[in-house]
Amino acid sequence: MAKVVIIGAGLMGSAMSWPLSGNGHEVCLVGTHLDDEVIDRCKSQRLHPRLNRELPGTVIPFFFHDVDQALDGADLIISGVSSPGVDWIAEVLSGRIRAGQQILSITKGIRIDDRGKVRLFPDIIAESFPLNVRNTVIPVAVGGPCIAGELAAGRQTCVMFGSRDIEAARSSARLLSTSYYHPRITEDLLSVELGVAMKNAYTVAVGIAYGMHAPDAAGANTHNTAAALFAQGCHEIGGLLRLTGGDERMASALPGAGDLYVTSAAGRTMTLGKMLGGGKTYAQAEAALRGVTLESVQIIREMGKALSIWESEGSIRSRSFPLLRMLVDIVVNGGKVEIPFEDFYKDV
Amino acid sequence: MAKVVIIGAGLMGSAMSWPLSGNGHEVCLVGTHLDDEVIDRCKSQRLHPRLNRELPGTVIPFFFHDVDQALDGADLIISGVSSPGVDWIAEVLSGRIRAGQQILSITKGIRIDDRGKVRLFPDIIAESFPLNVRNTVIPVAVGGPCIAGELAAGRQTCVMFGSRDIEAARSSARLLSTSYYHPRITEDLLSVELGVAMKNAYTVAVGIAYGMHAPDAAGANTHNTAAALFAQGCHEIGGLLRLTGGDERMASALPGAGDLYVTSAAGRTMTLGKMLGGGKTYAQAEAALRGVTLESVQIIREMGKALSIWESEGSIRSRSFPLLRMLVDIVVNGGKVEIPFEDFYKDV
Repeated sequence: MAKVVIIGAGLMGSAMSWPLSGNGHEVCLVGTHLDDEVIDRCKSQRLHPRLNRELPGTVIPFFFHDVDQALDGADLIISGVSSPGVDWIAEVLSGRIRAGQQILSITKGIRIDDRGKVRLFPDIIAESFPLNVRNTVIPVAVGGPCIAGELAAGRQTCVMFGSRDIEAARSSARLLSTSYYHPRITEDLLSVELGVAMKNAYTVAVGIAYGMHAPDAAGANTHNTAAALFAQGCHEIGGLLRLTGGDERMASALPGAGDLYVTSAAGRTMTLGKMLGGGKTYAQAEAALRGVTLESVQIIREMGKALSIWESEGSIRSRSFPLLRMLVDIVVNGGKVEIPFEDFYKDV
Repeated sequence: MAKVVIIGAGLMGSAMSWPLSGNGHEVCLVGTHLDDEVIDRCKSQRLHPRLNRELPGTVIPFFFHDVDQALDGADLIISGVSSPGVDWIAEVLSGRIRAGQQILSITKGIRIDDRGKVRLFPDIIAESFPLNVRNTVIPVAVGGPCIAGELAAGRQTCVMFGSRDIEAARSSARLLSTSYYHPRITEDLLSVELGVAMKNAYTVAVGIAYGMHAPDAAGANTHNTAAALFAQGCHEIGGLLRLTGGDERMASALPGAGDLYVTSAAGRTMTLGKMLGGGKTYAQAEAALRGVTLESVQIIREMGKALSIWESEGSIRSRSFPLLRMLVDIVVNGGKVEIPFEDFYKDV
């Protein structure tokens, strides 16, 4: 049995405890400095307040100040922070990482550098490590449909573990694989990470469709509109993968269509989209959602940077990725919802 | 303004009246011999009883016995029957078709011939035409998210018109294009038709996920499972397109992911899936749904034939298309729901 340390006691990080504990591993669930209340409840009542479930048997909760004790002898470290915490976790790990350490990142997002290059969170974390260990640590990332509460409930799902070293992906997947959590593996880390990030952006578009109209007297909803935007989202994810050297087929797989489907089923990103579809400006929606982490917005902003760099260097046309452009216009420029159907389904 | 004749007064055929009439075209809505009651209400009250909406102004309802009068001078004929009616509509048109006639098929489904070749409905219809007109009639088919009631309500959608003659697709699309109905065009008829047919089959799988569990006390649903099956469905549609000479990118576009999304949002195919996921055998579910046209079942049966021919001739492996195989096993062999996650996301 292995020792696995999860850093970040949010929904998704914490939910990973269930398959790990079910497999008999020792699980150290370490809260960040923002998770003290959660860890307190975990310690005093064995209850995870955000998942509203009793912690499985082999899980040991830790406050952040005990992180060194938790990390001692870890076989696998799971970075369970949300995207604003990526630089923080990089710093936390940089002074503590051992050569050859296995790391699994579950954070969803990307960054775009000043030359328009896509930077992946697992790489951003690894780049903070001391030179002598950096090349011995090959991070793994996971993507695919996984609502945390459903994972903790033991509902079936299938996800994709990606790493440039397939053995690293296989090894992490083996620790987590259960009768209900089915990891598949791939060497295509870029496609996993970009697919997972982009589904957050395009979920806003699906939400917009549902915000545009309430069902009418004859019961007509806006599923057609949602589906058209869903499909254009998948289509553009495929185009982004092709453009950045990924595998465009991932657009119709777990980190693309699968993750977009599940994120469109519920949650705060849909709430944002519905507000925008209902006529709120982004500023108004942001004010109404204050305090909620909107990874989708950060991703849309980064992609706005990317589109503008790619266009100025001639890699894409001025009307490529029309749905993403609409999202950027709404979030960055305070633009209105005007769906550019006439530009859909051209080569992007 | 054109004269457009729709044959079949079911939900989808009838709903096409709205964009056509909105564009000012004369629309003859001809019921089949099964639609007499519908046409009666359309004539006496200007109300379409199944859509529960008043017919638009330029629509003229016809009983089937007046089909010749309706067809006189038609610029476009829309075949609006469901899949069991394909041979019937072929026979109806074979004696009445003019050289150069434009035809648009909205029927969802496919057939597999004895050598495992995919046969498309538009081709089956065209093959019934007399030799001297057959090559002058190049059918168009439509796929993509389009719930009939939403189309009639003027809710936005984007669909794909496919024809081997792009001008034929363009010409039909022009008649129907409105501010809310946005047809895109493609020469890839096969991918449109196969994508649209297969989404019916894979919707059963999505339904199965939702039938497996009710939400639990902590609110956990089965969106993860549904999304994993959704993505595997898209992945297998891509594999089927590659195998049959289509464009696998259509798997993540309107006739694939888009149409699968909308069909999974509601309807009888989901109802069948939920029954199967809840533990009913196919025979039990069929009995409970008696009288409902299940195009999905017909498609699954045809694909069962295809898989077995393709496997015996060595075109596919014995575990290729694992989700489709599960559906075939359930429908054809009365098998149980056992999701083959371990075979997912391999090359199909």
